Order: sequence, then structure tokens, then C-alpha cells
Amino acid sequence: MITHIEHIGIAVKSLETAIPYYEKVLGLKCYNIEEVADQKVKTAFFMVGQTKIELLESTSPEGTIAKYIEKKGEGVHHLAFATDNIEAELAHVEAEGVQLIDKTPRKGAEGLDIAFLHPKSTLGVLTELCQDKNK
Amino acid sequence: MITHIEHIGIAVKSLETAIPYYEKVLGLKCYNIEEVADQKVKTAFFMVGQTKIELLESTSPEGTIAKYIEKKGEGVHHLAFATDNIEAELAHVEAEGVQLIDKTPRKGAEGLDIAFLHPKSTLGVLTELCQDKNK
Repeated sequence: MITHIEHIGIAVKSLETAIPYYEKVLGLKCYNIEEVADQKVKTAFFMVGQTKIELLESTSPEGTIAKYIEKKGEGVHHLAFATDNIEAELAHVEAEGVQLIDKTPRKGAEGLDIAFLHPKSTLGVLTELCQDKNK
Repeated sequence: MITHIEHIGIAVKSLETAIPYYEKVLGLKCYNIEEVADQKVKTAFFMVGQTKIELLESTSPEGTIAKYIEKKGEGVHHLAFATDNIEAELAHVEAEGVQLIDKTPRKGAEGLDIAFLHPKSTLGVLTELCQDKNK
């Protein structure tokens, strides 16, 4: 079952520019900066109610975030829905005809179990499912 | 002060296709469908935790949502942050150099007071501030 929006991933050119915007203009507090090496991104996290804003800066011109910005510009990159059972959720969406990018969950930022669904079968929204198994 | 993500606006070609996806695949419940005539959109709402998903279908080929889909494809169109004082929040972001689309709040869907910030000054994210003054 999906319980809430875990985070909103936003592609930015530069965390150095973006973090002050989110802090000073929107008044949010950056509580964590983390590099996810295999995704070629550096991430910065902010909490807004029960949802995180996850800013994503590419660490390589070949990274998916760099390519995304080249094609679409800076902006919302993906939506992540929190679920209480990621394996069951993945099996359910696949049975409903959704194409999975990750057939089984893998480790994402902040130690969550995550899996991406293909935007071709989610009406253009790159969708992530995630579960915090440490909770 | 910003308290939470009030809603995520998602541009879709057809509510008739999109509503069953959000209901059957993601397991969310559409609780309201509303036409906002002056924005040339028909909207469908789903609750996910404390945040709404607002699907947006254009009612005219000239509408902003139709033009958005033409240019960028279906996907996340805007993020709306809930604030407890929209006038103060607008004055603050303007003082910080943000370009406002709405200089003063106007009525949006579900009777909220809303105002949009220009994506040129919000790092590519079309940003809405909103306040539910009925609460």
C-alpha cells in the first residue's frame, strides 16, 4: 500500500546555487548531503511536512541527471511513493502492466529500498517506489 | 511559513486514461473532479498522505496544459507548497528576488488562495504557494 509521497526528486545544475534558494527563499533546511556514486549524483535533502525534497546534481556529464537537464532543463525529475511493502507493490504494478526499471528493490539514498517504474507506463512521471525497512 | 506539499500538479492528456492508472495501479482514490474554467483545465484529485495529486487535463488546445504537453510531454507540471500566510510568503519570496506570476493571491481549485512563482526564478520548477483560509 502506498502511504505518502516519500520524496520529490528535482534535477538541478548546481547544488551550490540550489541549496541557498531552497533555504533562503522557501525557508527549508538542508539536513543531509549525500553522494550516490553508482547513480552519478550528489543529493541534498530538505524536509517539508512528511515529504522530502531531494535535489539531484550530476557528478558526470554522462550521468542520467546531466542528460535529463540537457533534454528537458532543470525541474522535477521523479516522484517517490512510500510503500509499506515494496516487493508486494512491485508485483502488483507489474501485474497491472507497468514496465519496471528495477525488477527487484535496490539500495538508494538514505538506506531506503527503492525501485523505479518506467515513465512510458506511468503517464510520463518517472516513478519510484520506496520502503524504509529500518523503521 | 511553508508547512507541507499541498499538491503536485501533473499534466495528462486524458483524465479518462489517467484516473484508472492512479486508482488501479497506485491504489489511490479519486475524490474530486473539478473544472477550473479560467485556467482551461479539468482537474482530478487524489490524496496521498498529506499531499494531493492534482491531474490536469486541458479543455482547450490553447490552454497552458495543452501547450506544456506539446513542449515537454506528460509529466509533473508544478509543485504547490502550503503556507500559513500566503501574503507574507509572497512578499518574502519577492524580496528575495523571485519573479511572481501572481502579484496577489487568487482563487484556485478547491477554494484555496493561490499564487504562482515564475519557473525562471525557481530553478525550473513551476512553484505555487497556497493557503486554505477555510481552515
